[in-house]
Amino acid sequence: MVEALTLHEDPRSGNCFKIKLTAALLGLPLACRAYDIMKGETRTSEFLATVNANGRIPVLQIGEGETARFLPESNAACWYLAHGSALIPADRFAQADMLRWMFFEQYSHEPNVATLRFWLRFVGEANLSEQQRGQIMAKRMAGCAALDLMNRHLADHAFFAGPAVTLADIALFPYTHVAEEGGFGLGDYPNVTAWIARVQALPGFIAMD
Amino acid sequence: MVEALTLHEDPRSGNCFKIKLTAALLGLPLACRAYDIMKGETRTSEFLATVNANGRIPVLQIGEGETARFLPESNAACWYLAHGSALIPADRFAQADMLRWMFFEQYSHEPNVATLRFWLRFVGEANLSEQQRGQIMAKRMAGCAALDLMNRHLADHAFFAGPAVTLADIALFPYTHVAEEGGFGLGDYPNVTAWIARVQALPGFIAMD
Repeated sequence: MVEALTLHEDPRSGNCFKIKLTAALLGLPLACRAYDIMKGETRTSEFLATVNANGRIPVLQIGEGETARFLPESNAACWYLAHGSALIPADRFAQADMLRWMFFEQYSHEPNVATLRFWLRFVGEANLSEQQRGQIMAKRMAGCAALDLMNRHLADHAFFAGPAVTLADIALFPYTHVAEEGGFGLGDYPNVTAWIARVQALPGFIAMD
Repeated sequence: MVEALTLHEDPRSGNCFKIKLTAALLGLPLACRAYDIMKGETRTSEFLATVNANGRIPVLQIGEGETARFLPESNAACWYLAHGSALIPADRFAQADMLRWMFFEQYSHEPNVATLRFWLRFVGEANLSEQQRGQIMAKRMAGCAALDLMNRHLADHAFFAGPAVTLADIALFPYTHVAEEGGFGLGDYPNVTAWIARVQALPGFIAMD
């Protein structure tokens, strides 16, 4: 029996898009339920009690009703969807190397590249707290370092972990391809822009909302 | 043929300890090569060229000489070591749920709980930049939220992903059990302290340096 898959998401979130892109590349049906994080819709008592006690989206719901299970963390949700598919390499080193880029994405890329996009495009620089404004320079430098590392790796790799697309590419694509919305100039990273085009040319690719 | 395993590490780093603990629980021999991150020893041109272009430890080296392969990111290195063992559940949901806690660790736990320990214990509050000092309050709140989420999960789970120890526990243990060095009071999280004792009682457990 195939269990129904539902994504609890904010359509503007690149973390949510990772999961939709994984499902699209695999041809899996995925229902979506939208929340507005700017209005606190993922901090209601109902959301915290049933969907995610951490108050964050995305959450992948597997099944429905009383037996439904909920999986937070975008990259873990992608892993669940891609189980047994070619998006996860079977080779021991390649699989760990794919996860290496996915942990890099969450630790070194997302908190800089995605957060600056969120602050500058969605919150607005004028609305930032003094404390947030004080972090812009450090996040700019760390985000550039992440993009530079990706650019050097892509100098002799078509995709991040092995010769074909894996979840590492899906995890890194969403916030990278809209990095300019956070003030990062992608023209400085030509191997990254070539890789973006390769991802966009994949059969089944869908664009972010 | 079993390939030689070498950990490039700073012995004070909880991220490095994760890998040593995984190897110890599995009974795998692991050589260690120590660097002092406070002296910039992971930013030398030799380190950047051969071990990790990202200038960070830990890095797990697999094999030696010209065929050696290097795996950065602590949680990816643990995954490589634990391949095929009981530390990674075989069940599809349990495996993804284990990764969920490992991504949570890198995104919501480490940048708060570990960073405050590094700043307060190793750098020293008097030596922090104005910009770092301005982040202490936000990191304190986010670290407490992470510990609180763990405490609530552990109210009815012996370990994080399933009934037995997995890599999720190994990833969360190092910085949690020394959280008081970063100013977090573990007395507020009794389920966490009970879980710390369960991890410490595992056969093969080793203490952090």
